[in-house]
Amino acid sequence: MIECGCGKKAVYFRRNEGRYYCKKCLMDGVEKKFYRTVGRNKLIERGDKIAVGVSGGKDSTVLLYLLKMMQKKKGGFELVAISVDEGIMGYRDKSIKAIGKICKKYGVPHHIYTYKNELGFSLDELMCKKKIKSCTYCGVFRRYILNKKARELGCNKLAVGHNLDDEAQSVLINFVRGDMLRFQRLGAFPKILDDKRFASRIKPLRNIPKREIAAYAIIKRFKIEEGHCPYSFDNMRRDIQTMVNKLEQNYPGTKQQIVNFYDRLHPMISKKSGKVIGTCEKCGEPSSLRVCKYCELLEKIKN
Amino acid sequence: MIECGCGKKAVYFRRNEGRYYCKKCLMDGVEKKFYRTVGRNKLIERGDKIAVGVSGGKDSTVLLYLLKMMQKKKGGFELVAISVDEGIMGYRDKSIKAIGKICKKYGVPHHIYTYKNELGFSLDELMCKKKIKSCTYCGVFRRYILNKKARELGCNKLAVGHNLDDEAQSVLINFVRGDMLRFQRLGAFPKILDDKRFASRIKPLRNIPKREIAAYAIIKRFKIEEGHCPYSFDNMRRDIQTMVNKLEQNYPGTKQQIVNFYDRLHPMISKKSGKVIGTCEKCGEPSSLRVCKYCELLEKIKN
Repeated sequence: MIECGCGKKAVYFRRNEGRYYCKKCLMDGVEKKFYRTVGRNKLIERGDKIAVGVSGGKDSTVLLYLLKMMQKKKGGFELVAISVDEGIMGYRDKSIKAIGKICKKYGVPHHIYTYKNELGFSLDELMCKKKIKSCTYCGVFRRYILNKKARELGCNKLAVGHNLDDEAQSVLINFVRGDMLRFQRLGAFPKILDDKRFASRIKPLRNIPKREIAAYAIIKRFKIEEGHCPYSFDNMRRDIQTMVNKLEQNYPGTKQQIVNFYDRLHPMISKKSGKVIGTCEKCGEPSSLRVCKYCELLEKIKN
Repeated sequence: MIECGCGKKAVYFRRNEGRYYCKKCLMDGVEKKFYRTVGRNKLIERGDKIAVGVSGGKDSTVLLYLLKMMQKKKGGFELVAISVDEGIMGYRDKSIKAIGKICKKYGVPHHIYTYKNELGFSLDELMCKKKIKSCTYCGVFRRYILNKKARELGCNKLAVGHNLDDEAQSVLINFVRGDMLRFQRLGAFPKILDDKRFASRIKPLRNIPKREIAAYAIIKRFKIEEGHCPYSFDNMRRDIQTMVNKLEQNYPGTKQQIVNFYDRLHPMISKKSGKVIGTCEKCGEPSSLRVCKYCELLEKIKN
């Protein structure tokens, strides 16, 4: 039997440390990273009302659970769960049902917003009619709906389930694309905009590897509807993901190193621009363009 | 027949532009990039004495030729070629002979420094006796010898043949490794040290893709001894090289984008440290450590 440092049976191997972990020590480790990320970046303050974006996947389920535990232990902030239902039969309906049960179990109010209600059509309906690169559209639509609804629910923050893998990928994608604006906006708490119309995005899981979150979810026996969006396509994120995983395999600790290096660069590269974000003349939501990206893509689809 | 924009027969396709080039237009393009890099970064100034590190490969051969042409056209600076002969039978001996002929043809004085004379042993002799990761050692030895000899020859600059591919790889390697010091020292002309004991490294080819340099060398019919160092091993550079090539294939222009993005970050991240570099107590060369890396590795080998 391979043993954890504490003497119990090991269930997990952290390659970058070369150490084995039992269930209990692994869970403690995950929770420690969560609290450290929250603490060091001051993600949560007394009086916050936090909307948690929940899809029903492992990341958002673990995020909701950890935030709820923190609330129980320390108090001082409110929690609300928000789901965006794109309308993907056999995939999103199942995962939203699963997360609904978890919200109920832990007593977190759960709000579901559907594409059908918000946009006038489900993603299934749209994809039957148009051949589009849906990821581009969903990215914009989801962020727009989450921000708007979080604000309408009176939330000043929006917690998202981005893990270490997601963050390392985002750093490299924006670097490789040369997208300075998006590059500057990464981090656990990218407070670049001092604008009450935005719920500030926080990423309490951004220092926890995907594998450890998955292991945590399995140990906790969370009911998670696995699955893969039928409309997702091969894009740069997929390529970068493959590369980062290969590097992590050959040089354990690479993902954390990428994110740590980003954090060292961040204070040097991000000066508050002082730029005031205008208002979309169609929908009235904040936008740096005359017509926001959401309205632009919606118009494109309708024509 | 596929034609260049000028009507002549095309021999090269620049994927990121989607354009075909004939021999003449491709060569003009390469030379334009060379002059632009030299001009924008003020790599060469009146009165400079430039040592060119030449191995006999495509990059250093093209570099030597372009610098010589610039000298003929504009004048105002001196050129000297330096080769480091590690002593790798069947590889370096051939390439140094080839570059020697080119130096003679263009009237550039050529100085060869051997491991045997400088260190006391050739790389062949060393590798027979010790199982070491030779790339780590050669990197340090070569840089040390090039800098020392350039200075002894009275050169204030050291031109190296790094191309766009090399530079994009170096940017990502140091990013992924989280090596801030080396990350800050990249660029066409990384003048971070104001220290006369260092010949300032300049990289006139760092915006020209490897493929275009190879095409240029072929069109010019330079005699180049191809080959691969028998001691080189799979390391992170190899992994990153594969990844960057894959990205370039799927998203043409990626290499240039990585380098351009680095150039945008560079002024934000590099402040002159004002740190004074000390002297190695063994060899008297500049070093930030008590004993320099060169002496440390040499000692390690001898024991």
